[in-house]
Amino acid sequence: MPSQEKIVLKPIGFVRTENVGDEVKDKSRASQIVFHSELAEALGGIEDFSHLFVLFWLHEISEEQRKTLKVHPRGREDLPLLGIFATRTKLRSNPIGLTLVELVKVEGNVLTVRGLDAFDGTPVLDIKPFNSWDMAKDVRVPRWWTKLENEKAHLR
Amino acid sequence: MPSQEKIVLKPIGFVRTENVGDEVKDKSRASQIVFHSELAEALGGIEDFSHLFVLFWLHEISEEQRKTLKVHPRGREDLPLLGIFATRTKLRSNPIGLTLVELVKVEGNVLTVRGLDAFDGTPVLDIKPFNSWDMAKDVRVPRWWTKLENEKAHLR
Repeated sequence: MPSQEKIVLKPIGFVRTENVGDEVKDKSRASQIVFHSELAEALGGIEDFSHLFVLFWLHEISEEQRKTLKVHPRGREDLPLLGIFATRTKLRSNPIGLTLVELVKVEGNVLTVRGLDAFDGTPVLDIKPFNSWDMAKDVRVPRWWTKLENEKAHLR
Repeated sequence: MPSQEKIVLKPIGFVRTENVGDEVKDKSRASQIVFHSELAEALGGIEDFSHLFVLFWLHEISEEQRKTLKVHPRGREDLPLLGIFATRTKLRSNPIGLTLVELVKVEGNVLTVRGLDAFDGTPVLDIKPFNSWDMAKDVRVPRWWTKLENEKAHLR
């Protein structure tokens, strides 16, 4: 049986944004990822991709919140009580955010991206160029998920 | 300026697979994710999704390898030397693997999935249900990437 060892990560940079509150969920808004300057070289070639995954650390989630096992999606008690791994809640055992963004501009150690739902100062763990491996056909999601998506579309 | 604090993660489970060597890259092969038993409850509702992202820890990458800044994709010197963040190399500052898989079966704390390119015993950090947020239109990738993909298709 593998050991229960701890895994230690170090941020590769931070989110810099003027977006606050619900603005961070607005997919049309830009923000920046500022990499540690010694990692600038590791960005060479990124400009040829249109889209990236950003993995970031939800640093505002407490140790206690990490123990959550079940949630109502977006806190809505009219929706089923579900295991956290069946949702995209921030209350996760390892609170890592994963968001697909559009790459707008590269300037030295700073990437400008569109659609990153992270607050100013959020530690960034990794970025990965997006490609067809990351897409699926015949995707099935539960009814509660579709209901939430339809409501959101209606609000736009 | 945000602090350079360390981030500590704990695996939520491990990969169990009979696939070895290049077999792990075969998208048609199944493997399992065995969650720690106290997290079984956190899987409730996962069965209604067809696809998941699996985030896992590339535990065979050394501290020294994590300092890599540039690589030739798949070690091929005929391809450009690129920053690691412009590739999906395992040699990353924070060696987190991200793979889209098909969910085949849920039995208690064990998920059977198809297409997970991870070796037996790999620590799993998170799973996230896949949906339309995770897909992009008008995706652009570099020429070297398309070349590799075309070669792979030719081998099938």
